[in-house]
Amino acid sequence: MKFSREDAEFMSRALHLAERGLFTTDPNPRVGCVIVKDGQIVGEGWHRQAGGPHAEVEALRQSGARAQGATAYVSLEPCCHHGKTPPCTDALVAAGVSRVVAAMKDPNPRVSGEGLRILENAGVSVACGLLENAATTLNPGFCKRMTTGRPYIRSKLAMSLDGRTALPSGESKWITGEDARRDAHRLRARSSAILTGIGTVLQDDPELTARLPESAGEILQPVRVILDSRLRMPATRRLAQGRNRAVALTALSDKARSQALSDRFEIETLPAAPDGRLDLTAVADWLGHRQFNEVLVEAGPILNGALLRENLVDEWIIYAAPVVLGDRANGLFHLPDLTRMAERFELTISDVRQVGRDIKLTLHRK
Amino acid sequence: MKFSREDAEFMSRALHLAERGLFTTDPNPRVGCVIVKDGQIVGEGWHRQAGGPHAEVEALRQSGARAQGATAYVSLEPCCHHGKTPPCTDALVAAGVSRVVAAMKDPNPRVSGEGLRILENAGVSVACGLLENAATTLNPGFCKRMTTGRPYIRSKLAMSLDGRTALPSGESKWITGEDARRDAHRLRARSSAILTGIGTVLQDDPELTARLPESAGEILQPVRVILDSRLRMPATRRLAQGRNRAVALTALSDKARSQALSDRFEIETLPAAPDGRLDLTAVADWLGHRQFNEVLVEAGPILNGALLRENLVDEWIIYAAPVVLGDRANGLFHLPDLTRMAERFELTISDVRQVGRDIKLTLHRK
Repeated sequence: MKFSREDAEFMSRALHLAERGLFTTDPNPRVGCVIVKDGQIVGEGWHRQAGGPHAEVEALRQSGARAQGATAYVSLEPCCHHGKTPPCTDALVAAGVSRVVAAMKDPNPRVSGEGLRILENAGVSVACGLLENAATTLNPGFCKRMTTGRPYIRSKLAMSLDGRTALPSGESKWITGEDARRDAHRLRARSSAILTGIGTVLQDDPELTARLPESAGEILQPVRVILDSRLRMPATRRLAQGRNRAVALTALSDKARSQALSDRFEIETLPAAPDGRLDLTAVADWLGHRQFNEVLVEAGPILNGALLRENLVDEWIIYAAPVVLGDRANGLFHLPDLTRMAERFELTISDVRQVGRDIKLTLHRK
Repeated sequence: MKFSREDAEFMSRALHLAERGLFTTDPNPRVGCVIVKDGQIVGEGWHRQAGGPHAEVEALRQSGARAQGATAYVSLEPCCHHGKTPPCTDALVAAGVSRVVAAMKDPNPRVSGEGLRILENAGVSVACGLLENAATTLNPGFCKRMTTGRPYIRSKLAMSLDGRTALPSGESKWITGEDARRDAHRLRARSSAILTGIGTVLQDDPELTARLPESAGEILQPVRVILDSRLRMPATRRLAQGRNRAVALTALSDKARSQALSDRFEIETLPAAPDGRLDLTAVADWLGHRQFNEVLVEAGPILNGALLRENLVDEWIIYAAPVVLGDRANGLFHLPDLTRMAERFELTISDVRQVGRDIKLTLHRK
């Protein structure tokens, strides 16, 4: 056995600490660190925000001289480059840590393993891969962006039992109960950006901010991104309020219109698809380029249908309420007529749970 | 404490035995019995089929003289009337049983408690209400019919993740996976009748028989009942095959047409609602009158929508497959336009579980 039961316990603690940064580390990953000397934790740390100290540095600070000969458990391979802060590998070696256990390698294929190699060359005993799944799950966006250049895209839908999102009148407040809505705000809070379509903005006038109870701690508010190929955005929507400017992605080059909105919106022009809508793969690339790790889609049937067809969503979260709205109400996914069952889109259910009176389904690509 | 831990164990065994009659006791309830002497089971029995011996008689037969001074655990209050078989109360007294523990009273309000009273008057110690919920759940149809005159109506639906039951072309085979379909055959097998609409018959030409693996044992096939207000039933459908005649319920009085079908179908004329369709409350009454305990609805959006509106369904079973069919595909419930969210139909989720790659939801009235 490469890892002992104690190793697993301490790594579990490091992952737990890492999770404290769930709402604040963007664009960095959530990372936790525990320093253990003679079976006792002598220092703990977690990464709170970009530019601030890394988890290892925090933990070493707490440990002081006790780090000498200690084991460091980190939920991610220590960095070995000069970013906004000096390399953690240097700090660990300087503190005299004798063993480093990492849950996973740096997902960036160009540096993956380099931090561990540097530590090893400095005489530190290294091991990697303990609770790796949990570590990956904690940073799905960072991992995906480092390996593909695109964010982890999660689409959240709230539907009735019979798969309807709104009445024919457009009314959609509220299909799901309070518990589900609170849960959805956690999804927003952990996301780097919320992606929606102009149709939803015009119809529902959403705020798209993460609202959580005080006890949830600090939140780095997600950037609101609106797909608005023809730049129909009115300047007076709720999205135009708040401290942070929302981003309107458009295929239109209209300087006057852009200028008029620029006070409240950041306008980005992206390529259009042949149908005049924005090219969604270009949108995904842009989202990655902006260093968004996790992107939450909160949109209507047209955008969700298009994302499904283009296979751009990594994870679907569907809250289903035990209510029936009937077959005249609006559906979840706008798709062209399927003529044969073989043309259906298949997903895989990863998780089902009750959230208050509703059900929460988590699905991934098949 | 009225009941000991041993009492619960033996009653649990009686309920387990009762379940063996899940597919065969119609129109009788499923009942199990365990006779216990000095902490040892000396006889077990369960009711297999109407006209056959009751559970108590089977168990007493096994026990022989050991029933003297024993305790009988029965999942339902022993009968005290002469039906197709003599009263079980007589048999228990004659065998010298000294204590009878029943999970629940006879649900028929006119006899409820009478069996226990007779036993008590004969000097037997009686107790009732042990694992009562489990006992009721085993016979929802019998219980409901005895108290209301109508069967327990369960509607089964199979849908895509986005609440669709069929493609615009009508193709619906197969949305759900094999495990869900096998599970649905168990629902059929435990039902006294399957209820469908003529639209489904014309569209899908279903057989509506319960098909289970050999290991599931004997099945009393459910009676197929088709709502066919205008008697459009063709004589050549799959429903016309098989040993048992299906029943067509119609609002039409057309002797020639009825005569032509009578070889293969039993034709019953029932009152029509103002819209010309069958009056569904009259249908529910007729189903109860026919001594159907559990009725399984397998129908399309029109009948399900009408049943939902008229609040005639006790239990909704929805199999949801992780596939997307899109908003052009057919919905679950045909309902008139809801104009306000407050008009929605609310249900309560009783159970959620994964069945193979699909999800099975059980819902009840709110």
